[in-house]
Amino acid sequence: MALIVQKYGGTSVGSVERINAVAQRVIRARREGHDVVVVVSAMSGETDRLIALAKTIADRPAPRELDVLLATGEQVTIALTAIALEKHGCPAVSYTGQQVRILTDSAHNKARIMKIDAAVLHRDLKAGKVVVVAGFQGVDERGNITTLGRGGSDTTAVALAAALKADECQIYTDVDGVYTSDPRVVPAAHRLDKVTFEEMLEMASLGAKVLQIRSVEFARKYNVRLRVLSSFKDGPGTLITSEEDSMEEPLISGVTTNKNEAKLTVLGVPDKPGIASRILGPIAAANIEVDMIVQNVGADGTTDFTFTVNRTDYDHALDILKKAAAEMKARAVEGDNKIAKLSVVGVGMRSHAGIASRMFETLAAENINIRMISTSEIKISVVVDEKYIELGARALHTAFGLDRAVD
Amino acid sequence: MALIVQKYGGTSVGSVERINAVAQRVIRARREGHDVVVVVSAMSGETDRLIALAKTIADRPAPRELDVLLATGEQVTIALTAIALEKHGCPAVSYTGQQVRILTDSAHNKARIMKIDAAVLHRDLKAGKVVVVAGFQGVDERGNITTLGRGGSDTTAVALAAALKADECQIYTDVDGVYTSDPRVVPAAHRLDKVTFEEMLEMASLGAKVLQIRSVEFARKYNVRLRVLSSFKDGPGTLITSEEDSMEEPLISGVTTNKNEAKLTVLGVPDKPGIASRILGPIAAANIEVDMIVQNVGADGTTDFTFTVNRTDYDHALDILKKAAAEMKARAVEGDNKIAKLSVVGVGMRSHAGIASRMFETLAAENINIRMISTSEIKISVVVDEKYIELGARALHTAFGLDRAVD
Repeated sequence: MALIVQKYGGTSVGSVERINAVAQRVIRARREGHDVVVVVSAMSGETDRLIALAKTIADRPAPRELDVLLATGEQVTIALTAIALEKHGCPAVSYTGQQVRILTDSAHNKARIMKIDAAVLHRDLKAGKVVVVAGFQGVDERGNITTLGRGGSDTTAVALAAALKADECQIYTDVDGVYTSDPRVVPAAHRLDKVTFEEMLEMASLGAKVLQIRSVEFARKYNVRLRVLSSFKDGPGTLITSEEDSMEEPLISGVTTNKNEAKLTVLGVPDKPGIASRILGPIAAANIEVDMIVQNVGADGTTDFTFTVNRTDYDHALDILKKAAAEMKARAVEGDNKIAKLSVVGVGMRSHAGIASRMFETLAAENINIRMISTSEIKISVVVDEKYIELGARALHTAFGLDRAVD
Repeated sequence: MALIVQKYGGTSVGSVERINAVAQRVIRARREGHDVVVVVSAMSGETDRLIALAKTIADRPAPRELDVLLATGEQVTIALTAIALEKHGCPAVSYTGQQVRILTDSAHNKARIMKIDAAVLHRDLKAGKVVVVAGFQGVDERGNITTLGRGGSDTTAVALAAALKADECQIYTDVDGVYTSDPRVVPAAHRLDKVTFEEMLEMASLGAKVLQIRSVEFARKYNVRLRVLSSFKDGPGTLITSEEDSMEEPLISGVTTNKNEAKLTVLGVPDKPGIASRILGPIAAANIEVDMIVQNVGADGTTDFTFTVNRTDYDHALDILKKAAAEMKARAVEGDNKIAKLSVVGVGMRSHAGIASRMFETLAAENINIRMISTSEIKISVVVDEKYIELGARALHTAFGLDRAVD
């Protein structure tokens, strides 16, 4: 008998019918002999509805009060889920973040979990009950309701699994696992049985939006066995686990694509210390997130500095950069918002030379020009013209042996 | 400077526009130098929507979980109200019943308030904030969310006023006060400036649905100065106060009507001890509420027993009564669901003889036959044929000098 934390997102609890389906799935796990803690999000669309309601009153609603408002979304779902479980004869009890006590800091709208009291939940489990916990929310030291920010329910589930020392944390979503690439881009993409935390982190940050990135960090830190599954069809899903568990490591686990990118370059900046911060300082001050950063050494004591931002921030970033460049007497500012990022990810590349060169050769063979390169220990990303992204992804997927075996 | 508790019902916070209007009204009270605690209900329709949602899952939702669900209704309103106040530059802080700590017993869906911690609220008021509290909800000793049942927000407001030792508890509704009679029935009806708790209790139970009856009892017990006002138009409203405050007591304060009644009679029951309980026991067991009860002594060792119930319970009550009558060997069972109740209420009648006779004379002069009579210290109720109810109410309103003075 195992203790399992099951997390169901907004789509999985988006209607009364789906909540009933969740109840059936929980009851099945119980019949298999497991103790179950269920973490649920707000019904799909509900959080957006509540935010819109607040914004009709104030453009920038008081953050403390916005949290009080948003927390009702999951509170509705925990009650309905518990009602569904009890109707089917399964004893259940619901808890808000405040009731569990999921203690967070006081950063409203983006709070971080500090501590979870698991005693009450253990007592309920021992009494044969399914415990239904509201995701996304907690309470600070002074009793104020807080929320964890978008995707926070995944983090709640993992944090609960860690606090309860659960055997597995199952994240139910609308996909049936983690894929080697986006199946809409690469038709030959296939589901991975296993992926390491490190690979999942790189994939998540590269645009494979299966799991919220903070929850993966949390799972790695507390060594929580994490599994991504579909709430709509049965299957083993993908197990996300620490590296040691993976006996046979594939070279590359996946190819990811991200079209939501734009590139900005400052040309001919005096190559002196402090340049990077003078360029990126005003960008950060405007709350624009920077993704890749590349600096090339130039010939005449100047350098070229390039970085990428979310495409929606492109115009804003370009304006800021032009002012900064003028102050620094840079030669010119260039930008391109028709680019995309293509990456290969895999812990296997650490110990294998030649991954980068095989990647570049493959792209060259397709006549795809590389505009920018950035690497980490287990990832290589290149920026290419947007129009080549699908072609490049498919070529790399094949080149690294990821294509699904023909049945 | 006074401390005022203002309570706004579902209609008064039924939309974003109305919540903004509530904020304006609160801010006006603050400008007049008062400290304000605001108690709000769920937005109109929201509680019914949530109940319907639960019932699509289970016919009889688990009571504990239904409370978790329903409590979200007021939680939405407190957040939106606080957001509206802060947008207008008025510092505000919202509290759920659990956060205040409004301690109740554990009777889910109909809990009773046991204790309120006012310390936190006093601290916020001292810091210059408006405190916005969710009505209708509380928390039990073990931290379970509870609700007080329909109309519970009035009780929350009065209980808070008592705990805070507020100078006045203002209940904002869609009427501008308590009237001498229902203006739709008696056009000459006028607003009362003052009414005693006792009269208000009689009026509330007789169908003048301005205030929830438990809240009036609470106000009387803790001597809370209670005022009913309109949230849509300005005016002094009606002050509900203890008897001593009323210097000049009118004979009669109001004439009330209630058409939601049906009458049942058991004829020729053996006049022995225990008869009443043998008749009413099965009725109570079926959760049917009984209003008036009258028993007449008969001639031949038998008695006639008559009582009234809500008209919606008439058929059910008649079925039960026929069975009970057969067992008791009663002569017959009669029923009438085309009756109505007409009452005059006033603490003045205690010290004045002749109220009853003037009432009966007035009805006789209009050829209205009295079918049943019941009296309390400050009330006389008669049952008449439904068709006479408007005529009777207007005649009594005039006879007791309640008609509005012609301007």
